[in-house]
Amino acid sequence: MDLDAVIRKVPDHPKPGILFYDVMPVFADPAALDHCVRELAGWARPMDVDVVLGAESRGFILGGALARELGTGFVTARKPGKLPGATIREEYELEYGTDVLEMHADAVRPGQRVLVHDDLLATGGTAAAKIRLVEAMGGVVAGVAFVVELTFLPGRARLAPHPVRALVAYDSEAVPAA
Amino acid sequence: MDLDAVIRKVPDHPKPGILFYDVMPVFADPAALDHCVRELAGWARPMDVDVVLGAESRGFILGGALARELGTGFVTARKPGKLPGATIREEYELEYGTDVLEMHADAVRPGQRVLVHDDLLATGGTAAAKIRLVEAMGGVVAGVAFVVELTFLPGRARLAPHPVRALVAYDSEAVPAA
Repeated sequence: MDLDAVIRKVPDHPKPGILFYDVMPVFADPAALDHCVRELAGWARPMDVDVVLGAESRGFILGGALARELGTGFVTARKPGKLPGATIREEYELEYGTDVLEMHADAVRPGQRVLVHDDLLATGGTAAAKIRLVEAMGGVVAGVAFVVELTFLPGRARLAPHPVRALVAYDSEAVPAA
Repeated sequence: MDLDAVIRKVPDHPKPGILFYDVMPVFADPAALDHCVRELAGWARPMDVDVVLGAESRGFILGGALARELGTGFVTARKPGKLPGATIREEYELEYGTDVLEMHADAVRPGQRVLVHDDLLATGGTAAAKIRLVEAMGGVVAGVAFVVELTFLPGRARLAPHPVRALVAYDSEAVPAA
């Protein structure tokens, strides 16, 4: 299936010269949504995944569907202050400054195999933070699954040696010349 | 299935005397996750749903899985400033002050039948805002589906005449006496 045809390209967003890849139309398209779940779950199935982890908030959309397809549960990494129980936290870098992801400290049990999911792999900062959270709880990262990968950024190298899968790759963030 | 046994009750959160119902353990439990998707999709299937709408961010978790189960797409209502395209917005009331939900202005097409989903029905403020967004785009609200309903709040009455389904009801927010 040609996911690229479904992904919306928004020129000059969030700033002039940048082409923004909007994954949301993939979720809005019944065939594309089904395709993503089948492809990513098919890739992860041999990995004996115990639980799927998605980051707030776009990683929740396919995350729940992936968990159901794999017959596992779904757990979340959230923005600070959202979780009512005891949490652990990891900082990650933004373009300017840092942000924090939190998980319930009992969300992953020691030895559980975790499929980490988000919609888009850019610098890999949030995925790396999720990996650190999983490993801090004694979990094992089975793989990291995305819909889109921006290959002009070093995200994949940063997630090594964990297996990484993305369904569509883009090698430029430049707005095409008219 | 006894979802109540899976829902975590957090006493004195977010303030003393309040019992917080945490739905997240439902998503983390493979059988409970599957049960919720089957039950809510089974309820909605006769309604000829064209698209599922979930609110940021906990409404994304089952929303994507519900859409896939129903063979529809999934669209989002998000916090302000997250969407790259042209948007429409609706305010809703919080305990103190107001907040805003935004949708892409083309997320629902005129005449489409929309299943509105969120994890928890409390006052109904965010669900009512989603209904107004759907109707502003010319869509038809087929039904409103939740996992948990707090029946000591007037949420369901506020969503009338739209069909409402919740899988678990709680009639008190008081922390039980020891």
